[in-house]
Amino acid sequence: MKIALAQLNYIVGDIPGNSEKIIVAMERAQQAGAALVVFSELAVVGYPPKDLLAKPKFVRDNEQAIEWIARKAQGISALVGFVRQNPNPRGRSLYNAAALLQDGRIAAEHYKVLLPTYDVFDELRYFEPAPAVAPITVEAAGQKLTIGVTICEDLWNDPRFLKRKLYHRNPLAEVIQAGAQLLVNVSASPFERGKHGFREKLFGTQISDFGVPLAFVNQVGGNDELIFDGASTFFAADGRVVARAKAFAEDLLLVDTETLNGGARCEPYPDEAASVFQTLTLGLKDYVHKCGFKQIVLGLSGGIDSSLVACVAIEALGKDAVHGVAMPSQFNAEASLTDARDMAANLGIDFRVVPIERIRQVFDTELADIFDNLPRDVTEENIQARIRGNLLMALSNKYGWMLLTTGNKSEMAVGYCTLYGDMCGGLAVISDVPKNMVYRLCRYYNEWKGRQIVPEGVFTKAPSAELRPNQTDQDSLPPYDLLDQIIQLYVEENRSAEEIAAAGLDATLVRQVIGMVDRNEYKRKQAPPGLKVTGKAFGYGRRVPIAQRYRQ
Amino acid sequence: MKIALAQLNYIVGDIPGNSEKIIVAMERAQQAGAALVVFSELAVVGYPPKDLLAKPKFVRDNEQAIEWIARKAQGISALVGFVRQNPNPRGRSLYNAAALLQDGRIAAEHYKVLLPTYDVFDELRYFEPAPAVAPITVEAAGQKLTIGVTICEDLWNDPRFLKRKLYHRNPLAEVIQAGAQLLVNVSASPFERGKHGFREKLFGTQISDFGVPLAFVNQVGGNDELIFDGASTFFAADGRVVARAKAFAEDLLLVDTETLNGGARCEPYPDEAASVFQTLTLGLKDYVHKCGFKQIVLGLSGGIDSSLVACVAIEALGKDAVHGVAMPSQFNAEASLTDARDMAANLGIDFRVVPIERIRQVFDTELADIFDNLPRDVTEENIQARIRGNLLMALSNKYGWMLLTTGNKSEMAVGYCTLYGDMCGGLAVISDVPKNMVYRLCRYYNEWKGRQIVPEGVFTKAPSAELRPNQTDQDSLPPYDLLDQIIQLYVEENRSAEEIAAAGLDATLVRQVIGMVDRNEYKRKQAPPGLKVTGKAFGYGRRVPIAQRYRQ
Repeated sequence: MKIALAQLNYIVGDIPGNSEKIIVAMERAQQAGAALVVFSELAVVGYPPKDLLAKPKFVRDNEQAIEWIARKAQGISALVGFVRQNPNPRGRSLYNAAALLQDGRIAAEHYKVLLPTYDVFDELRYFEPAPAVAPITVEAAGQKLTIGVTICEDLWNDPRFLKRKLYHRNPLAEVIQAGAQLLVNVSASPFERGKHGFREKLFGTQISDFGVPLAFVNQVGGNDELIFDGASTFFAADGRVVARAKAFAEDLLLVDTETLNGGARCEPYPDEAASVFQTLTLGLKDYVHKCGFKQIVLGLSGGIDSSLVACVAIEALGKDAVHGVAMPSQFNAEASLTDARDMAANLGIDFRVVPIERIRQVFDTELADIFDNLPRDVTEENIQARIRGNLLMALSNKYGWMLLTTGNKSEMAVGYCTLYGDMCGGLAVISDVPKNMVYRLCRYYNEWKGRQIVPEGVFTKAPSAELRPNQTDQDSLPPYDLLDQIIQLYVEENRSAEEIAAAGLDATLVRQVIGMVDRNEYKRKQAPPGLKVTGKAFGYGRRVPIAQRYRQ
Repeated sequence: MKIALAQLNYIVGDIPGNSEKIIVAMERAQQAGAALVVFSELAVVGYPPKDLLAKPKFVRDNEQAIEWIARKAQGISALVGFVRQNPNPRGRSLYNAAALLQDGRIAAEHYKVLLPTYDVFDELRYFEPAPAVAPITVEAAGQKLTIGVTICEDLWNDPRFLKRKLYHRNPLAEVIQAGAQLLVNVSASPFERGKHGFREKLFGTQISDFGVPLAFVNQVGGNDELIFDGASTFFAADGRVVARAKAFAEDLLLVDTETLNGGARCEPYPDEAASVFQTLTLGLKDYVHKCGFKQIVLGLSGGIDSSLVACVAIEALGKDAVHGVAMPSQFNAEASLTDARDMAANLGIDFRVVPIERIRQVFDTELADIFDNLPRDVTEENIQARIRGNLLMALSNKYGWMLLTTGNKSEMAVGYCTLYGDMCGGLAVISDVPKNMVYRLCRYYNEWKGRQIVPEGVFTKAPSAELRPNQTDQDSLPPYDLLDQIIQLYVEENRSAEEIAAAGLDATLVRQVIGMVDRNEYKRKQAPPGLKVTGKAFGYGRRVPIAQRYRQ
């Protein structure tokens, strides 16, 4: 049977737009000769819909949409993810569902069994697990095939790959034992670095045990913090990847289950630096556009962080949509302004300079009485950062440009950033990118483009916030390679101070960094959403109390 | 049997401090002749610990603490909430547990069955439901009693009181049928307006069916957004309340199960205005103190919102800990400054004036080129709000005062507030208080204190942000009584536009307000934590995507 894997970029909540997109892809699949077209998880509403699911009308609208899409399924079968009201008055009120549409109607429905409720996932907040699962039969274009549907997490349950057997059921075994000839995984699997290879190994290993082929269909695109990387895949019964759709782009991948070894398209998946860069690019583009913005503004300090964000922004939106602003004070080195100017010129973007010195002085004057000759401290540094935040937001408000923040994960972890200052913005593009990876991505960008877009001086000078004379980051922070190691172990892996020190890091330094991470939860609470690229990002998937006193 | 209900104010994560508190209360209960003392849910770690539970060392520390507390339980039995590692390698890794401590050891353990995963609760993120439950036997001071332990949600499962039967099990029936003579509910039940009466009715009705008395033990105090109101209660077998601990304060309540009708202490529960005011007071006090601050600063505009926050702050922290700042511009009415000054004088708090006019003018000058003679708009209003935010944060940074924001729920709902401006602060004290309730609480405060602390002018003048000449809130917003009705139905009850209009509200206005609520999700994402007083607060319990396009 000829099957199409429809990998689309949905907008969360846009039920009419998503439905239209599904119907167009269904028609294209039919024209290409497919008997079955498979869409991703919750395609009708976009994943993750979060608390939109709490609105009864939202669920009803989505149920009407699936009926409407069903009527268009003539001469082709389609498997489409949507939300189904649970008719049983007991249990959670919804199912995470997939409908088999054929002959103009819903021929069968299938519900998700394993509902992830960890990290960024909250599915038991909304959904009831399927009471039982069974294969369903596709009949289209004179052909017949018994498929075993799994929905995303249903296929992430192999104890060989997990630290813990989280679930009591195994829907994969259930559908295979009941006679499925082909497995389908209707999915919404967000990117994190290294996950793609793991995912293919996890799926390949499981199905090779059973000897049944698998069609994995992912969505693509950014929805708030999560970026879905696509790369929908067809696996042969022995677990080999025989076809792969594009990563980071919409695609319609056709596979003939009869002639698996011949000619199916297999797109490459980019390596780590490229995949992270593309994730940021797609995440930025979709966040800006899905929020209704066309252009962005950012502060260009001449440092490595704002340089990276500028590169990502022009790849995402084009150079005409990007506005860079330098806001020097008396504490900024001349070289910083030069680097910022060069960077903007290399990218060909709009560049403005708004000095903050005079504003800073009036703040000083107006606060002199109330500050009563107290010594200068971090207060005066924060005032500068907040003047810059105010100026950038003024440009955002006046011209309708979304402001991007440029803080990296290392800074966000230890609170080396000013709330309402450099943390101002609609999106924190690199808040999940550790400092060392920021350097790596800028190198990658220069190599990719084949010229020195990020000036060499940006790599070689000591990082500095330039908020007082001769300041460098290392006045306040440990070297970034040590800092990033500690953050990795503490934030991503939840290791204790003792365990981190046992990994060869100085115990005093470890405790100092952990203390900074803990104390700065209040800043991160008020940060803009950030694009997730690691196993544990600050944001929706990390829920730490603020007023708490756990000390190790 | 003489039983003590120990209602304490725990600090989340402070395992040594909480353990100490538990031991002290255990000793006090013993001195008062109790054979059993009952503590609240997760007492050892404080509720809710959130992702601290993801740290294996945190769980181990809490397990060591319960062993330590157990050794102190000599001559008295204690039932104490804590976290237990699930020894089964399948299922979630933790249990929400209560341990019966007696004779210096853990005599029995009981695990929670029903794990709330809605609104502010995320328990299925962490905990495995108890596989089975059975009564446990208390033996202390020569007495013996079979108790049926339930943990919080386990007793919130009566279909007569709920829209939906969420759960498939009924732990209450399980323990009673197995022979429990006394029910205990080890709880952490946060305040919302109207909930106290509902809670007592729900509990009373259920136990009267079974004819078994109930000891309900709540924690008290604020933890981030949630405020636990205490009011631990003893119900007789017929459902009557026979003893009640204080609301909004620590307490140790003694009940003799033999002589229920005689002499048990029954504290009153405050009425709605008083209970909301006390919730805000306790929430503010605990947030400030548990975050390690002693004093606060707030902008005093002479309006009703900052007046309410100032009243709450002095009740929470005392007048010497409260600093009010007026920051007039050319757009502020003389009366506003007078009202702010009178308000501060009536409360006896520190009051400063920092004019923003000169700073505002320099911003105007520095932005003149880049703004290129474009007409003045909301940009110039936001600049003023952000100058004020910068000044207040400068005071916060210089003096170590926590800045409080003063925006109410009605403003937060429709985005009538400036991000990084009046939204700056560590805690949004009244962000869950609708405007009409703000007026009511100020009236209540004047009545309670028996004098006009909030000046009459503050009630009678038209609300205004005073960011342009002759501005009033009603230039941009519908009258607050209509607005608050729509917000109630849309935000708290998830009604559709059509349903809200059917309740007698103008359909165009309803759609306009709903649009404003939806569009301003990005502002609320970056708001400080707010104190929850209604059934649905903005914050942790309301998770709406930002880049989404659901339109009704």
